[in-house]
Amino acid sequence: MMKIAVDAMGGDNAPKAIVEGVVLAKKQFPDIQFQLYGKEAEIKKYLDDENNITIIHTDEKINSDDEPVKAIRRKKNASMVLAAQAVKNGEADAIFSAGNTGALLAAGLFIIGRIKGIERPGLMSTLPVMGKTTGFDMLDLGANADNKAEHLHQYAILGSFYARNVRNIQNPRVGLLNNGTEETKGSELTKKAYQLLAAEPAINFIGNVEARELLNGAADVVVTDGFTGNAVLKSIEGTALNLMALLKEAIKSSGTKGKIGALFLKDSLYTLKDALDYSRYGGAVLFGLKAPVIKTHGATGPEAVANTIKQIHTMLETDVVNELVKQFEIQPPAEG
Amino acid sequence: MMKIAVDAMGGDNAPKAIVEGVVLAKKQFPDIQFQLYGKEAEIKKYLDDENNITIIHTDEKINSDDEPVKAIRRKKNASMVLAAQAVKNGEADAIFSAGNTGALLAAGLFIIGRIKGIERPGLMSTLPVMGKTTGFDMLDLGANADNKAEHLHQYAILGSFYARNVRNIQNPRVGLLNNGTEETKGSELTKKAYQLLAAEPAINFIGNVEARELLNGAADVVVTDGFTGNAVLKSIEGTALNLMALLKEAIKSSGTKGKIGALFLKDSLYTLKDALDYSRYGGAVLFGLKAPVIKTHGATGPEAVANTIKQIHTMLETDVVNELVKQFEIQPPAEG
Repeated sequence: MMKIAVDAMGGDNAPKAIVEGVVLAKKQFPDIQFQLYGKEAEIKKYLDDENNITIIHTDEKINSDDEPVKAIRRKKNASMVLAAQAVKNGEADAIFSAGNTGALLAAGLFIIGRIKGIERPGLMSTLPVMGKTTGFDMLDLGANADNKAEHLHQYAILGSFYARNVRNIQNPRVGLLNNGTEETKGSELTKKAYQLLAAEPAINFIGNVEARELLNGAADVVVTDGFTGNAVLKSIEGTALNLMALLKEAIKSSGTKGKIGALFLKDSLYTLKDALDYSRYGGAVLFGLKAPVIKTHGATGPEAVANTIKQIHTMLETDVVNELVKQFEIQPPAEG
Repeated sequence: MMKIAVDAMGGDNAPKAIVEGVVLAKKQFPDIQFQLYGKEAEIKKYLDDENNITIIHTDEKINSDDEPVKAIRRKKNASMVLAAQAVKNGEADAIFSAGNTGALLAAGLFIIGRIKGIERPGLMSTLPVMGKTTGFDMLDLGANADNKAEHLHQYAILGSFYARNVRNIQNPRVGLLNNGTEETKGSELTKKAYQLLAAEPAINFIGNVEARELLNGAADVVVTDGFTGNAVLKSIEGTALNLMALLKEAIKSSGTKGKIGALFLKDSLYTLKDALDYSRYGGAVLFGLKAPVIKTHGATGPEAVANTIKQIHTMLETDVVNELVKQFEIQPPAEG
C-alpha cells in the first residue's frame, strides 16, 4: 500500500473539498492508504466509509496568512506539520496540502529535507499547451525569489526526470526561458545557465524559449528562476481570467443577441475554459525534497484534489523521487 | 513647427505602412514637419502630396536581423542612422521607427545620448487595463537584460513624469512589480528598489503589485527590470493570442451552430480584440534619452503609425523630455 499524508485542514474549502476529493480518489486507487490530519468530527462528515482511511485528530492548523517559517516552528501540532512529520518518520510516502504554500515549502525544507545535490527545491506545475492534451512542466514558479545558474541546472534535471518518468515523455525537450532565442541573448543569470544546460548530457536541451511561445508547446520542460517564473505564471493567469471576464461582460452587454450567440457557442466557450484549467494535470510539486510534497490551489474543489492524488499515485508508482535521490548520488551536478 | 524624423524603411510593411500612417497623421497635425528617410521613389508612391514633407533619400537600411550595435556603426547611411543624426544635430525633435528595436536603442544611446542621471534608458509602453479606456505605463519592457535597483528608481520617476504630463493622470500611482504585495516580499533587487521608491518624494509609490493584477489597473505606472518586463509582456501577448486563436478554432469546429453563434457575438468578439490592441496608445518609448525615440511593432499598419505620431506630438507639445532633463539637473536620483 502507498501511504499519503493529507493535510485535511488546508485550503479555503477545507476540510469538505479535501475529504470529498479523497473519497473520489479512494474509489479509483484501492492501493492507497490515506492518513487524514485534522478535526476528526469535521472530517467524518464528508467520508462515506473509513476503508483505507486513518484519521489523526488535531485541533491546530496553519492559516493562509500565517508567516510560513514561524508557523511551522510554533504550531507543532498543526495538521500540515503532523503530516510532514509522518513523511519524515517513514509513516507516509508523500504529503498533500491545499494550504499555505510558503508554510508547505518550509515544512518540506525543515521537516522532510532536501535531496542531496539540490540546493533550492523549486515549485513545478504542468501547464497547458493550447489546443493539445499534453502540457509542459515549468519550474521554479516561485519557491525562490533569487536563483543561481546552478539551481536552474538542477531544475532542468528534475523537470526532465519528471516529464520522462511521470508524464511518460520519451526524450523531453528542455528549454531555458529567456528574452530571445539566440544563444548570446540573456541576463547574466540565463547566459551562465545556458552554458551549464548545454554541457549537461542527462538532458535534451533545445536552447532558449521565449515567454510568448510557452503555451504553444515550445518545450516539454521550461526552467527559469523563481522570480521570473512567478511573474510569468501570474501574467498568464491574469490575462486568461481577464479575457474570460471581458468576454462574459461583452456577451452580457450585447443583450438578447449576445445571449443567443453565447447559447450557440456554449460548447466552444467550455472548450476555452477547459483549455485553461490545468488542475487536470494535478497540483504543484515542491520538487527537490526527499519525498513528494504536493500543493493544490487554496480554492480547489474535490475534482482537482482527486486529480492531484492521481498525480501523487503516479509519482509513487514510478518512484520518481527515490530514483532522483539515486541519480544525484551517482552524478551530482555542480553546486553554486 | 515640430519636426519628426521618420525611418521610412523600418518594419515589415515599410515604406508603405509608414508613409500611409504619416499621410493620416499629417491631416490631423498640420503643425508637424515630417522628415522621411529612405528610398525617395518608393516613399513617393504612397504620398498624396508633399506638404509638410521632406524626403531625405538613402538606399541603405538596417534589417530586422542585423546585429544592433554593429549595424549602427557600419551602416552610416541607413535610414534609421540618418534620422537619429538629424535629432542629434537639432534638425529634428524626435525620431520614429518600426525597425530593429535593438538598433534603435543603440542609435538612441550612441547617437542621441542619455539624459544625465539616467544610466539605463528603458523601453516603456502603455498597456491596456481591461474594460477601461485608460491604460498603465510599464518599464523596462526589455531594453536591458540586467538592471540595478537604482535603475528601477529612475524608471519610476520617468514613468510618473510621462503619466502625468503626456497621459494627464494627476497623481499617478507607481507600483513595483513583485512576487507578493507585502513590503517584505521580493528578490534582492526588488527589496532594495522598494526602499528607494518608498523614500522618493517625487512619486506616489503605492507599493508592490503582482503580475496577476496588472491588467486590472493595479497601478498607473509599473516598474520592473528589463528581463522580467520582457517575460511579462510576452506572457500577456502569448496568452491573449493563444486564447483568441483557440476561441476561433472552437467556433470553427462547432460547425453551423458555432458560425451562427459567432455571428450573433461578432460585436462582443471585436470588443475583446479591441481591448487587447494597445497600439491605440501609440508605440513604445525608449525612455531616458535626450529626445523622444519611439518604436512601433514591425508588423504595424498605418493606423498604429498615426496613433504613434499622435503620441509623439503630445510628447513634444508637453515638452516631457526637456522637462525631465531639467528635473534631473535639479535633483538627480542616486546612481548605482
